[in-house]
Amino acid sequence: MHVYFDHNATTAVDDAVLDAMLPYFQREFGNPSSRHARGMVARQAVNRAREQVADSVGVQPAQVVFTSGGSEANNLFIQGAAGYLKPTRIIVSAVEHPCVMRAAQELARNANGKWNLRRLAVDDSGRVNPADADHAVMEQQPGLVSVMLANNETGVIQDVAAIAEKARACGAWMHTDAVQAFGKIPVDFASLKVHAMTLSAHKVYGPKGAAALIMDKRLLLKPLIYGGGHENGLRSGTENVPAIVGFGVACELAKTRIAENTARIAAMRARIERGLVEMGAVIFGLGAARLPNTCYFALPGIEGDTLVVRLDKAGFAVASGAACSSVNPGQSHVLQAMGIDPMLARCAVRISLGSGNSLAQVENFLQTLSVVAEELKQMSMVAI
Amino acid sequence: MHVYFDHNATTAVDDAVLDAMLPYFQREFGNPSSRHARGMVARQAVNRAREQVADSVGVQPAQVVFTSGGSEANNLFIQGAAGYLKPTRIIVSAVEHPCVMRAAQELARNANGKWNLRRLAVDDSGRVNPADADHAVMEQQPGLVSVMLANNETGVIQDVAAIAEKARACGAWMHTDAVQAFGKIPVDFASLKVHAMTLSAHKVYGPKGAAALIMDKRLLLKPLIYGGGHENGLRSGTENVPAIVGFGVACELAKTRIAENTARIAAMRARIERGLVEMGAVIFGLGAARLPNTCYFALPGIEGDTLVVRLDKAGFAVASGAACSSVNPGQSHVLQAMGIDPMLARCAVRISLGSGNSLAQVENFLQTLSVVAEELKQMSMVAI
Repeated sequence: MHVYFDHNATTAVDDAVLDAMLPYFQREFGNPSSRHARGMVARQAVNRAREQVADSVGVQPAQVVFTSGGSEANNLFIQGAAGYLKPTRIIVSAVEHPCVMRAAQELARNANGKWNLRRLAVDDSGRVNPADADHAVMEQQPGLVSVMLANNETGVIQDVAAIAEKARACGAWMHTDAVQAFGKIPVDFASLKVHAMTLSAHKVYGPKGAAALIMDKRLLLKPLIYGGGHENGLRSGTENVPAIVGFGVACELAKTRIAENTARIAAMRARIERGLVEMGAVIFGLGAARLPNTCYFALPGIEGDTLVVRLDKAGFAVASGAACSSVNPGQSHVLQAMGIDPMLARCAVRISLGSGNSLAQVENFLQTLSVVAEELKQMSMVAI
Repeated sequence: MHVYFDHNATTAVDDAVLDAMLPYFQREFGNPSSRHARGMVARQAVNRAREQVADSVGVQPAQVVFTSGGSEANNLFIQGAAGYLKPTRIIVSAVEHPCVMRAAQELARNANGKWNLRRLAVDDSGRVNPADADHAVMEQQPGLVSVMLANNETGVIQDVAAIAEKARACGAWMHTDAVQAFGKIPVDFASLKVHAMTLSAHKVYGPKGAAALIMDKRLLLKPLIYGGGHENGLRSGTENVPAIVGFGVACELAKTRIAENTARIAAMRARIERGLVEMGAVIFGLGAARLPNTCYFALPGIEGDTLVVRLDKAGFAVASGAACSSVNPGQSHVLQAMGIDPMLARCAVRISLGSGNSLAQVENFLQTLSVVAEELKQMSMVAI
């Protein structure tokens, strides 16, 4: 049996989610824009999902813009807001996901764009310093600010509300990528004080292909995709009804299960980290508030990629970096921003726990890891 | 039993497609970017689907860029190509789907854009006149040309290859939206002589949430969605694995079933149109080559919207216009471009047949329609 410790990359669809989706592939397959009964059933299903998503983060259904994924939602905010605002400055944290970072870089590179990109530094625990952020916001007077709620690699949680307050005071539009935080810690739109927030289904036991940009209704965004005027003109294209239905149910489940899951998962993570420290591991972001499920560590001298492959063969799925950037291997920009020694950064491995994991799996993992790590150390000594 | 005559809006997922998709929601739920076994299984599934899609239109797998839908693929071509080319002129047919038309209009409206938009007129059958198109291309020397292969409302097929030849001769990049044609008539990328072509899964018994831009490998496009660099850097975001797998199988089925389906469906359409003509209907696009499944007609004096509602109650799902623009009701821009009298255009109803339909359904429909139409005529006379 393969044990899955890579829930920050993606999750399996929950039984209840799949059950809710299935009717919409065949029996109720209508296009929500059709005016006949089949269309109306599909439209109602999308509306219900919109209510479920909205309810899970405390907003009105009209504030939910469905997209095909978190990357699209993040790009919709950044490019969409930039399409409306006068080019000024955009501030993002140095540890953003590539879909925020590269969208921001693109604004700064744009032929016509006078957007200036400023990255907020993080400390060696991966935290944006709120005082630094204040300073940057006051100095730059940005039009746009985007700081993620929790990092996909380290799990480190940022004080988004504090940064949002300052951004608002300067008249900036504030966004947070809450894709990794949602379902792992409570996420409430109003408390975060942001203008916009990104959620994704497939990180919370929902399907791939559905996500949302949650928006303050007063924001004006230029669409990425023009066409039939779906999603209030912000995102054209036939709605992915089954995926949206699944997203709605996943949000409902996330809300009801969060407390129970969090306690159980935090206990497992604590056990893993005790074991790792005994093996001489360095744990990244240890000094900061982190998602309860994420453990990002390095065993000095053992390359992360090698360890991932060996653990995979031994039956454990873990990640050597963010899955999304595995397409473009290279050093983690997150660890680089934290000032981690590149030699140590090459040893980074991420464990991200989820609802299907058990303490027995954790104990097995620690035993396996100690054996594998010992073997790899021996090999590297021979190699020298 | 409700009879579905609205296959140009969307189709039910085929049993074989759903069977192929199901394992990827739970058992094989991995992120294709993950380096462990679960990730590799998902990557292989995406690769296989890419081969199936490529094979169905005679291209190499590397020419397939997966997107979340046809609207996204059409926008990716138009906005993406415009992002690379010097702004000049863009030519589209007057009967394009809103996701091509509005993307083109947006280029022309863009603050920095010097793109000029030229619409190709159609005749009263909905055909672009190739001689007119030649003239426009020669005169305008456009950078971009997009002409759909078959229209979603009328089913009218354009001579894309003839227009593409002229566009190429002028150095323009030529695109065709083949979303409605694919699966209903043979579609071969090379024969169409285009640089890029859009396909969508949910019109061919595949799932919503998967589509593709088929591209000449020499094209350079600016992405709509930046991030982890998926799809060769052209479309970032975790792949929607189940939907992509379903798309692949749907393409395979489309290829094997096209001849059989086409003949059967053409016969049903012929029967419907004989019946309609007997009832005094006008059939739009009758003089042109059309998709075998589409019948767009008007019973003079009977409003399309009213007829759709009455037929829906009587158990038949048909459309009063393109489903995608039902969000924004108003006169069909397609019929307007064809020079159809607005009074007659308001009576337009579309029937689009599919693989699940039978001649018995067609006969029942004609009987029902004659009764319903008679009732509505009586009512409108009373109203006068």
